[in-house]
Amino acid sequence: MEIGILGTGTVGRTIGTKLVQLGHEVMLGSRDPANPKAIAWASKLGSPHALYGTFKNAAEFGEIIFNCTLGSASLQVLQGVGTENLKDKILIDVSNPFNYSTDKIALMPCNTDSLGEQIQRAFPETHVVKTLNTMNINVMVEPDKVPGRTDVFVSGNNLKAKEAVTEILRDWFGWKSIIDLGDITTSRGVEMYMILWVCLRRVVDAERFNIKVMTS
Amino acid sequence: MEIGILGTGTVGRTIGTKLVQLGHEVMLGSRDPANPKAIAWASKLGSPHALYGTFKNAAEFGEIIFNCTLGSASLQVLQGVGTENLKDKILIDVSNPFNYSTDKIALMPCNTDSLGEQIQRAFPETHVVKTLNTMNINVMVEPDKVPGRTDVFVSGNNLKAKEAVTEILRDWFGWKSIIDLGDITTSRGVEMYMILWVCLRRVVDAERFNIKVMTS
Repeated sequence: MEIGILGTGTVGRTIGTKLVQLGHEVMLGSRDPANPKAIAWASKLGSPHALYGTFKNAAEFGEIIFNCTLGSASLQVLQGVGTENLKDKILIDVSNPFNYSTDKIALMPCNTDSLGEQIQRAFPETHVVKTLNTMNINVMVEPDKVPGRTDVFVSGNNLKAKEAVTEILRDWFGWKSIIDLGDITTSRGVEMYMILWVCLRRVVDAERFNIKVMTS
Repeated sequence: MEIGILGTGTVGRTIGTKLVQLGHEVMLGSRDPANPKAIAWASKLGSPHALYGTFKNAAEFGEIIFNCTLGSASLQVLQGVGTENLKDKILIDVSNPFNYSTDKIALMPCNTDSLGEQIQRAFPETHVVKTLNTMNINVMVEPDKVPGRTDVFVSGNNLKAKEAVTEILRDWFGWKSIIDLGDITTSRGVEMYMILWVCLRRVVDAERFNIKVMTS
């Protein structure tokens, strides 16, 4: 499949590497069509399937698109990409709206809105599915690195899009426990959880962690 | 030990029952000194250790105080109790600042503040420890009802107070995994997690659940 990834940070590159290794054609997009991190990524992979270009190039290229930009930049990046390049496509939103301008990490938006909802409202003909924003980067595509079948969540309005993303999570990335939280408003839950995640990252004595919902 | 519990809802009564069963003297406090729920609770327990009175009575009575009031009412209740009845005591804050006035459950305060912090700021000579706000009520005092040694979190500025609360959680209630998140500002993490908890409660097919942090 042809997949566009917006963002050349560690999240975008890690997901991109996994997808190329699985045999997909991947284009990493950034502001700069010759972004040094994207060039180094493609060069290291040494595959004709590892491509790069602008955000717009990557969105045009992808049948499915991953939003791996900084949450604070996501809406602006997507507006630049244009509605026509996102229309009728699945947009997998992996970002968190961290606001680093306060003394403690906070979120913007938060509580009565979420970035997932903002993106869905801005692009009503795109199928936004929020997922994978709740764990360490390398756990996203290698969930077995944390033992115990931990959980990943999906939020979105379109059931078929969520089914497709669930298959990607399960069959491509290896997630065994995928919890459908409901419509895109449940993005608030997974985004707001990240403040607890930030607290946990400071005190958990392990390189990686993730939560598991235990039931009686 | 003499323990004051502010609030006669299911949280207050459940914790109160457990403490009486453990042999402690417990006073449930409410606005009404003859609150019907408190009277029924004491009558059902049929123990001389199960007492009730006003919020102020309960706070005066307790060496340790549990705040089990609605988050939206907590500060007002505590102001009514008075600084002198809370001074130098441990206040275990179990409440969540749910705001039901919006179409979806939201929090007030949130993100750049928390109820735990508001209470600590309002009562600087009280040792506020936030805990037990992140799980179903009956799991709070019977953690083994959810298998798998799930987690409870503690947040607070005073280390000795957190140690005392950790002992209560472990020795009285049976918690085996207690995670100290840090100072009272980490109340934001556990309070904001509750929006994910509300999402989970709708979709998890079980009477009770709780999260466990799995590490690699």
